[in-house]
Amino acid sequence: MTDSPAAADALAKATAADMYARDHATQALGIKIMSVTAGHASMQMIVRHDMLNGHQTCHGGFIFTLADSAFAFACNSYNIQAVAAGCTIEFLAPACEGDLLVASATEQTRSGKTGIYDVEVVNQDGKKIALFRGKSHQIKGDVIKK
Amino acid sequence: MTDSPAAADALAKATAADMYARDHATQALGIKIMSVTAGHASMQMIVRHDMLNGHQTCHGGFIFTLADSAFAFACNSYNIQAVAAGCTIEFLAPACEGDLLVASATEQTRSGKTGIYDVEVVNQDGKKIALFRGKSHQIKGDVIKK
Amino acid sequence: MTDSPAAADALAKATAADMYARDHATQALGIKIMSVTAGHASMQMIVRHDMLNGHQTCHGGFIFTLADSAFAFACNSYNIQAVAAGCTIEFLAPACEGDLLVASATEQTRSGKTGIYDVEVVNQDGKKIALFRGKSHQIKGDVIKK
Amino acid sequence: MTDSPAAADALAKATAADMYARDHATQALGIKIMSVTAGHASMQMIVRHDMLNGHQTCHGGFIFTLADSAFAFACNSYNIQAVAAGCTIEFLAPACEGDLLVASATEQTRSGKTGIYDVEVVNQDGKKIALFRGKSHQIKGDVIKK
Repeated sequence: MTDSPAAADALAKATAADMYARDHATQALGIKIMSVTAGHASMQMIVRHDMLNGHQTCHGGFIFTLADSAFAFACNSYNIQAVAAGCTIEFLAPACEGDLLVASATEQTRSGKTGIYDVEVVNQDGKKIALFRGKSHQIKGDVIKK
Repeated sequence: MTDSPAAADALAKATAADMYARDHATQALGIKIMSVTAGHASMQMIVRHDMLNGHQTCHGGFIFTLADSAFAFACNSYNIQAVAAGCTIEFLAPACEGDLLVASATEQTRSGKTGIYDVEVVNQDGKKIALFRGKSHQIKGDVIKK
Repeated sequence: MTDSPAAADALAKATAADMYARDHATQALGIKIMSVTAGHASMQMIVRHDMLNGHQTCHGGFIFTLADSAFAFACNSYNIQAVAAGCTIEFLAPACEGDLLVASATEQTRSGKTGIYDVEVVNQDGKKIALFRGKSHQIKGDVIKK
Repeated sequence: MTDSPAAADALAKATAADMYARDHATQALGIKIMSVTAGHASMQMIVRHDMLNGHQTCHGGFIFTLADSAFAFACNSYNIQAVAAGCTIEFLAPACEGDLLVASATEQTRSGKTGIYDVEVVNQDGKKIALFRGKSHQIKGDVIKK
């Protein structure tokens, strides 16, 4: 890449805005973008009543979805379409109704078409809720539709 | 366990019914129980418009959530509360709006407080969409609240 | 593939024999092929003194290596070179010096260049020692060198 | 813990020395300890001829074993016995005969009896070879035998 870091971050922001506008799932869950730069994304979500499982804690699927969204925005930040090939998640502590969860995705490596991204999910007290690792695979096409 | 298989399956069904009634997340996504027996659960979900991501395919988080629900109902089927410790998912093919996804969870092993469950997610054509593996940890308390 | 199952299995056996002859690591650990067919491989290993860790049980790395070898022979059984992209392993019970471990790899799915293989490792009493899942990626070239 | 960081690191070093002396597997592979502090460990290994697989690159099992050893020394560094519950590894680039591999394990979280450790494996050029994540479970007993 011959792009300057500032240009890369500007592209990341433009890509995220374009992608978010079309991402019905992320919007419907109330997930909001906090920041996106090249290879990184932070997103937040408030645990709603309709996200609670039978134990009355946040269904792990929504914690995963928040982390997966942060991962998706990080690995698509170069405006080259990328999809998740596989993910792992470790659940460390439960999240409760009303909790504000923040997922921060960081690129660990990117080589060829494959990238590895680590996402940490914390609650409003900074307590670690989950650790997620995602593997991305680039496919053809830009993210931003002309 | 000295329970007969029939008694174990009856307990699994009663546990699932009790748990489902309190599981707002699973209900809100339109996930329905197809069958539950001791150590097994099959559940289905139709991919809705509000589950689509920026690539206009089903957000991986919802495929995970469906698999995670099937896993949860399988590992709680003994009426001893169990929670997910960690999960892995491999995404094999995209799912589209209107697709009917079926997740089938099978117990691979259960020893002490720990269990491993494999979940296969297929679409209405039998095409494999994802493979999920979950590790459960039993905690104190029954699932069915007296 | 237009190959008959018998022809596919014969190719798998020939590929395994060729690959094993060059696989110094698998040989040096005393790992032996029990059976190989298209998409499947079973291998065995006796836990040696020099495989024990500081807890005096088999170092998890050698349990992984046995499983990884079975995975490698299964995913290369089509005589198209394939390498491991990533693996997960769950350790269920310790293995001790002198134990005879058997790893059985089964193809879960293969599509495009990617395959998913599950490997179960048991000891001489049939006790499950570990569950392994590997993801393979095909690269250019045949396994059998002309 | 009321231990000072210096006391904790001294305990980590003493624990590692005691554990290494009994760890036949780690010794037999030529793995050496570079540094150990509370929750961290770095170890190195030279890829030998008898570690090569059928593709004439380092068998993934040995890359895993090196990472797993670093993980083991990190999670046992409190002189409370801990074992691996499960691990994931992503293979990023092949390692060749004669390569000097360094595995650095870092504690991500430790709560109750469970810990999560990330291990990065690089070669002599600093190239990332693998990313490993391990989950540990503490069991009864000290590491250092009186």
